[in-house]
Amino acid sequence: MCRTSCDVIWRRTAIRRTMNNRERRQNRVAAFIHDVWNCGREEMVGGYIAKNYTVHHDPGDPWDGQILNVADFIARLKICRAPFPDQRFDIQNMCVNDDAVTICWLWEATQAGDLPDFPATGQRIRMSGATHYLFDFEDKISGHWQVTDRLGVFQQLQKNGSITRALSGSRRDGSATGAR
Amino acid sequence: MCRTSCDVIWRRTAIRRTMNNRERRQNRVAAFIHDVWNCGREEMVGGYIAKNYTVHHDPGDPWDGQILNVADFIARLKICRAPFPDQRFDIQNMCVNDDAVTICWLWEATQAGDLPDFPATGQRIRMSGATHYLFDFEDKISGHWQVTDRLGVFQQLQKNGSITRALSGSRRDGSATGAR
Repeated sequence: MCRTSCDVIWRRTAIRRTMNNRERRQNRVAAFIHDVWNCGREEMVGGYIAKNYTVHHDPGDPWDGQILNVADFIARLKICRAPFPDQRFDIQNMCVNDDAVTICWLWEATQAGDLPDFPATGQRIRMSGATHYLFDFEDKISGHWQVTDRLGVFQQLQKNGSITRALSGSRRDGSATGAR
Repeated sequence: MCRTSCDVIWRRTAIRRTMNNRERRQNRVAAFIHDVWNCGREEMVGGYIAKNYTVHHDPGDPWDGQILNVADFIARLKICRAPFPDQRFDIQNMCVNDDAVTICWLWEATQAGDLPDFPATGQRIRMSGATHYLFDFEDKISGHWQVTDRLGVFQQLQKNGSITRALSGSRRDGSATGAR
């Protein structure tokens, strides 16, 4: 085979490898979101994330700026999912570069557990956000940079809390439950 | 030239074209952020955005869900930049797919103008967010899907407002200005 043909094939292979890496990592992020964050499969965390996982940027997240090992990550997963056990992330779009995958997402869950200042209401909460997941050389997710619409969640929690308090008050005097 | 070589070269060209398109669009988004959002160059908007620009998702943005023409977009740009004329977006990372570019960014500005419920303080405000920019076939930006940390901004505005009110109060009775 002539040198030019070899060169063409080598370049094609290199570019295709880049494209395949990117596709594989997109699939990996989609599976991670499904298995870990939607279904809460703690035993699968170690298969997705690196030994050291860095929370590079995540305003309001108690682990913002920290480096987590797999056990720390599972502890974070449990704490985050506890008030919202039926939570679902719905990926809206996905982009890649050589080292990372960024997803934009919608999120929805029932507030089944208490949050600081916001006792469980059983009401639905919706949120949107974007997460940039970084990969290491072993194709493990080594950290994230994330922004979520915290104000939108805060407003819903306030509203749902007011409704719940109003209904509880009504129930106590029986006015809204037909208990008279 | 044999059929196989032609095929190899065609495929290589197609993949390279995709890679070049992606790189060109990343450069375009970086230039758009610099020229339009950082520098406020209204006359350059038409060179970057499509005739119809859709705000697909942007919680809290008054134009959320709307389709804007170039004049509408310039009006939005003016209104958004008015309280923060020295604003700067600093792109933290950038990812692409065939139709879009997603950026994660930090933002910083001096609150030089009034906002509803928050009069100008001259204080610095910081924000983070992520924006997914969509492209049309003419390589114009045809819309965005965005999330910003609105709660972080709200908390800073509240804090700066309290400090300003406290200082104004002190000045009124002269206790903090040496006016006695």
